[in-house]
Amino acid sequence: MMQARAIVLLSGGLDSVTTMAIAQAEGFRVHALSFEYGQRHAIELVLARRVATKVGADHTVVRLDPALFGGTALVGDQLAVPRGREIDESIPVTYVPARNILFLSHALALAESKDARDIFIGVNALDYSGYPDCRPEFLAAFEQMAALGMKTGVEGSPVKIRAPLVKMTKAEIIQRGVELGVDYAMTSSCYDPDAEGRPCGQCDSCVLRARGFEGAGTPDPLVLKFR
Amino acid sequence: MMQARAIVLLSGGLDSVTTMAIAQAEGFRVHALSFEYGQRHAIELVLARRVATKVGADHTVVRLDPALFGGTALVGDQLAVPRGREIDESIPVTYVPARNILFLSHALALAESKDARDIFIGVNALDYSGYPDCRPEFLAAFEQMAALGMKTGVEGSPVKIRAPLVKMTKAEIIQRGVELGVDYAMTSSCYDPDAEGRPCGQCDSCVLRARGFEGAGTPDPLVLKFR
Repeated sequence: MMQARAIVLLSGGLDSVTTMAIAQAEGFRVHALSFEYGQRHAIELVLARRVATKVGADHTVVRLDPALFGGTALVGDQLAVPRGREIDESIPVTYVPARNILFLSHALALAESKDARDIFIGVNALDYSGYPDCRPEFLAAFEQMAALGMKTGVEGSPVKIRAPLVKMTKAEIIQRGVELGVDYAMTSSCYDPDAEGRPCGQCDSCVLRARGFEGAGTPDPLVLKFR
Repeated sequence: MMQARAIVLLSGGLDSVTTMAIAQAEGFRVHALSFEYGQRHAIELVLARRVATKVGADHTVVRLDPALFGGTALVGDQLAVPRGREIDESIPVTYVPARNILFLSHALALAESKDARDIFIGVNALDYSGYPDCRPEFLAAFEQMAALGMKTGVEGSPVKIRAPLVKMTKAEIIQRGVELGVDYAMTSSCYDPDAEGRPCGQCDSCVLRARGFEGAGTPDPLVLKFR
């Protein structure tokens, strides 16, 4: 039997790299999909390419038109990335309009082209930092929409949206990744790293990552690397 | 009160141009959105720009990565556009994977950037030529997904997907457009026009257009132009 393909949204961050390892552990042939959209943390794309190559996954990088993403701190230089702010349930200024909707829509197109029926996305809801497009109810609605709007769905073989991390804490994600042999020194989580990939240590994403490694009881190899 | 904005998906074809006229007649300030994705009928983009300018709409053209669209007759030269085939309920080879999903997802991002709450799309179900992503149940599911996944939805002001043509015949669409002063000589429907924009007269889309003008009891000014 031919190995089933899965599309994995790969940012190069801790969550998506762990998700890719989970998809491979389930036996899928992984086609990773990354996006270039003028994000500040473009080092992620370099890391994504490197880690996809290392684990033997196919990899496509799609360029999104940055003109669509006005008014967010993650794109361009108009807003500062907040540092040290309280992480709560409110929607942060790092929110990018319809980002996961766009990412998943591209993944649907690629899935149909590559005859894949599984799309993996590394969102998690427990410490999801306020993004509405990371919630399980959103993912369920997206899957339902795709089933109705695509040839595969009409033909009774709809695409499934798989979010294996959705109910895991950051610590649990890291523990699972370590079990699967993920090299976290190859991942980046920071919203605003320097040119060498050194994390700022202060943005939401760095803070969540540090708490995660603390909770997992293991040191962060990325932090060790820059010590 | 400031004029409310609407995003209108504009291909330059008969349906989308009529839809834009309907949005303007409802009082919206229209921001038209077109896509360049390596389609053969690229003349559409020229016409879309021309007609948007004529009616005073803002216009954004977004480039989609053609690598996502393998294996369809509308992109590249690998498959021939079928001519004279029977139009039935089956899915034609001109189907592009997840096309309307991608188009609408980009429209969501633009809507959020431009503070618009209405997205107009010119699909119609009665003679919809077999595309699953033109059906009302798909559009309803897309709207629901967007309400759950976007900041605007979470804040109680969700984006609405408006498909004013969805239950109209081609003849009714043309009649409505003529009432609103649409210049159909500026529109293109053909999947495979020549370099000057002359329609082939034989593809699904040309056949549906010809039937529509016949039913509306008015000549097609595009056909007259090339006679």
